[in-house]
Amino acid sequence: MAPEKRFLELWGIQADLAYGSAVLQWDQETYMPPEGAEARGKILATLAEIKHAKMVSSELKDAIEAAAEVAEAGSELEAQVLEARRIVEREAKIPAALAKALAEAESAGLVAWQNARKEADFALFRDSLAETVKLNQEKAAALAPDGNAYDAMLDLYEAGTTEAQLVPMFEELGATLAPMIQAVKDSGVVVDESPAQGHFDPVKQQEFTSMVAARMGYRFEGGRLDKTTHPFCTTFGSGDVRITWRYQEDDIRPALYGVMHEAGHGLYEQGVGPDVRTPIGNATGLGMHESQSRLWENMVGRSESFWEWAMPHFIAAFPDKQGLTPAAMQPALNTCRPSLIRVEADEATYNLHVAARFEIERKLFAGKVAVDDLPELWDQTYEDLLGVRATSASDGVLQDIHWAMGAFGYFPTYTIGNLICAQLFESAKAKLGDLDAMFREGEFAPLLGWLRENVHQHGKRYPTHKLVEMATGKPLSAGPLLDHLTGMANRVYGVPVAAK
Amino acid sequence: MAPEKRFLELWGIQADLAYGSAVLQWDQETYMPPEGAEARGKILATLAEIKHAKMVSSELKDAIEAAAEVAEAGSELEAQVLEARRIVEREAKIPAALAKALAEAESAGLVAWQNARKEADFALFRDSLAETVKLNQEKAAALAPDGNAYDAMLDLYEAGTTEAQLVPMFEELGATLAPMIQAVKDSGVVVDESPAQGHFDPVKQQEFTSMVAARMGYRFEGGRLDKTTHPFCTTFGSGDVRITWRYQEDDIRPALYGVMHEAGHGLYEQGVGPDVRTPIGNATGLGMHESQSRLWENMVGRSESFWEWAMPHFIAAFPDKQGLTPAAMQPALNTCRPSLIRVEADEATYNLHVAARFEIERKLFAGKVAVDDLPELWDQTYEDLLGVRATSASDGVLQDIHWAMGAFGYFPTYTIGNLICAQLFESAKAKLGDLDAMFREGEFAPLLGWLRENVHQHGKRYPTHKLVEMATGKPLSAGPLLDHLTGMANRVYGVPVAAK
Repeated sequence: MAPEKRFLELWGIQADLAYGSAVLQWDQETYMPPEGAEARGKILATLAEIKHAKMVSSELKDAIEAAAEVAEAGSELEAQVLEARRIVEREAKIPAALAKALAEAESAGLVAWQNARKEADFALFRDSLAETVKLNQEKAAALAPDGNAYDAMLDLYEAGTTEAQLVPMFEELGATLAPMIQAVKDSGVVVDESPAQGHFDPVKQQEFTSMVAARMGYRFEGGRLDKTTHPFCTTFGSGDVRITWRYQEDDIRPALYGVMHEAGHGLYEQGVGPDVRTPIGNATGLGMHESQSRLWENMVGRSESFWEWAMPHFIAAFPDKQGLTPAAMQPALNTCRPSLIRVEADEATYNLHVAARFEIERKLFAGKVAVDDLPELWDQTYEDLLGVRATSASDGVLQDIHWAMGAFGYFPTYTIGNLICAQLFESAKAKLGDLDAMFREGEFAPLLGWLRENVHQHGKRYPTHKLVEMATGKPLSAGPLLDHLTGMANRVYGVPVAAK
Repeated sequence: MAPEKRFLELWGIQADLAYGSAVLQWDQETYMPPEGAEARGKILATLAEIKHAKMVSSELKDAIEAAAEVAEAGSELEAQVLEARRIVEREAKIPAALAKALAEAESAGLVAWQNARKEADFALFRDSLAETVKLNQEKAAALAPDGNAYDAMLDLYEAGTTEAQLVPMFEELGATLAPMIQAVKDSGVVVDESPAQGHFDPVKQQEFTSMVAARMGYRFEGGRLDKTTHPFCTTFGSGDVRITWRYQEDDIRPALYGVMHEAGHGLYEQGVGPDVRTPIGNATGLGMHESQSRLWENMVGRSESFWEWAMPHFIAAFPDKQGLTPAAMQPALNTCRPSLIRVEADEATYNLHVAARFEIERKLFAGKVAVDDLPELWDQTYEDLLGVRATSASDGVLQDIHWAMGAFGYFPTYTIGNLICAQLFESAKAKLGDLDAMFREGEFAPLLGWLRENVHQHGKRYPTHKLVEMATGKPLSAGPLLDHLTGMANRVYGVPVAAK
């Protein structure tokens, strides 16, 4: 067998095991009966063990190197080889005993966190979190014996990202957003949110949001929408990219922006060019992924022009809203108000929630704070950055699932995604012309086409920063996002836009 | 590691791969979007290849033999070793190239069959079926080089069953049922089926049938009910046993008896005693499995006493049926009328549909007929046994999915199941007393308890025939089923019961 064929055949097994496990996890979140959890955990653990053993086998390593020898510079095969080698080398660095201990600690951590959150008692999570932190510090040391521990964590979610890059980025964001948020507060303007509130029948919410997703271009022939506690997007193959949602009966925003967000992820996955069973057949990183979800959610879904198209459909679904105008709706979708909970935060303050976590995580991995200090450090960081302080640990240090799952270094990808989103949207507008005029007609195909061509089709062929430059002609910067956010604060709250 | 621990650990991997694949297949039938089929096929093929490779590995073989050496006679470990050895030896007999060719032929066969059935044109299925038959004949030769080819097929679904056992069984059934069915026809009685017909809202059908399943004892905390084209029961672990259903809006019978049938299978799976990740942690065979589904569907669900409990619930769900009595309902559930389609056949004629397939399959595997002869042989056999002849191949030789999937030797397990069902029910009645009095009160726990104790808890510890004898004190015979069917024909059609 030709070396590249052998390599891709073995990699296809890796892909099949990953996608197969993803189906089992999707089912776990959607339809699995409660008593199925124990057996499901065993099946997933067995698949993970088989995948790991095949991943670090000499068989795969040899096949990668044999393919490397025949790969021409700049070829698709070279990109496949480089990505496969990166993943395999990373996996091989983690000792089996550590991998097992991590899986067990994260599984136990999830249970402890759920319990602690319910009881609003950090003490119930403390030991479990301390163990997860310790093991992840060991993991970081195994991955980068001589490097920065937090960089090793960041690299897991957005390859090549470093703490040194992120510090000035968050500083730049904070330097503009902190005074802007203060100015919004000082303006005394109180946004009327009632246009987005009321009573919304869940079945009608599903119909309306599904219609929006389909209009965006999300293919239900190769996807579906199901209810879960936490919405997500998951892929089992290019023809099977599923999204999930949740709703509130008294507010349309969680359902609508949740679905637009996940459908944005879904459009990326449905548009990936390279075969999904190859090493480059998926998104290039979590930041780029988040850019796609945020683009549809924020740049499209919160715009007045989108609502000029959507409003008649919205009113048809919810006749109580008869007479509501896009102009009256828009402020309710673009509030700016410091709050305690990240997942409920508005677009402007959201990045400060991420900045808070970044500050805490880098201290934790630098050994500058202990797990016992986290509740107080959390509250103090929120007070410093957002001017709010939680009265319950459930609204503070216990609010996110990430640390319980051992996902340290994940949060910054949310803000990287926001930056990329704004920069891509700016370029798309420059190229496509009057996007607002298209949105008013419910014409989203040109925008999707631009994203397909400049982002989706490439899969993992190029790293995030290179792909941003290719698509926008500029290195990634905070400018477009800050322009977008200050412009919105100006329109909604009358806050003057600071001179650049 | 102790030999038995090592053996069960390796077997657990087999179980996890099987249950994991079952989840993927369940999703394929319930929620997978149409474009997901291609990727799903690849994932399932990869899991099957991994499972096969581990099944025939020297690692597993050595572990089984090491465990065999420490297994005491009559112990649970001995039963585990014997079953594991049987399965592994069978799998090892199939050459890898043949296994691959079979999987491909069956996959192609399914598509060809669906197409041929839609077009009612056997010619579109002919080549594919010929290939599947040829490969299964090779499989039979590989499994039993010196034995009867059809016995090798039968053994796949009901271990130890032979053609020589089945010939007199079907003869005995035919000798009573053929004249009984003729007498029913001659009686001139036409059953009024309108009590089971009308308009039944699908949501209400789901609520009513789910309520019945729960009352039978099917645990929804460890199960669920979803819609599929063909109903089935599937297991992913002792806490996750799912059933599926379909409905007709104008007839309650497909939904109700479909759900009772699948819930009967589900009760067996939910009640298996040995750990489901061990070789004996499932049903002892397809015949015993079918006995459980048929027992709840036919012995319970079609009885007048069941309807004395169920009728108020039925009327509450479907107020059109106000005034309907159990006595008026019962004949509509116990008709006897030769028909063309097995899955729509009544309880009495059903076994003649199976007998027809048994006759055809044994001729096919004896090389006495060719694939080209099948359409005519099918129609002639139906005319001989049931007195009806299809005018379309879709209602004749193309009606079942089994041959397209390469499942030759499967059909007889349906009739074995009917025999076991009647014999078990007779014994349960003898032991528990007035079951009808219990049914009238909706009390099914005593019957389920008896089945749990005498069948379910044993899992695969004993072979089918031994388990029947243990439970009923007698070898399996056709007597109880014939008594049941002739008794029903007597009550519904007034046909005299022949002296034994």
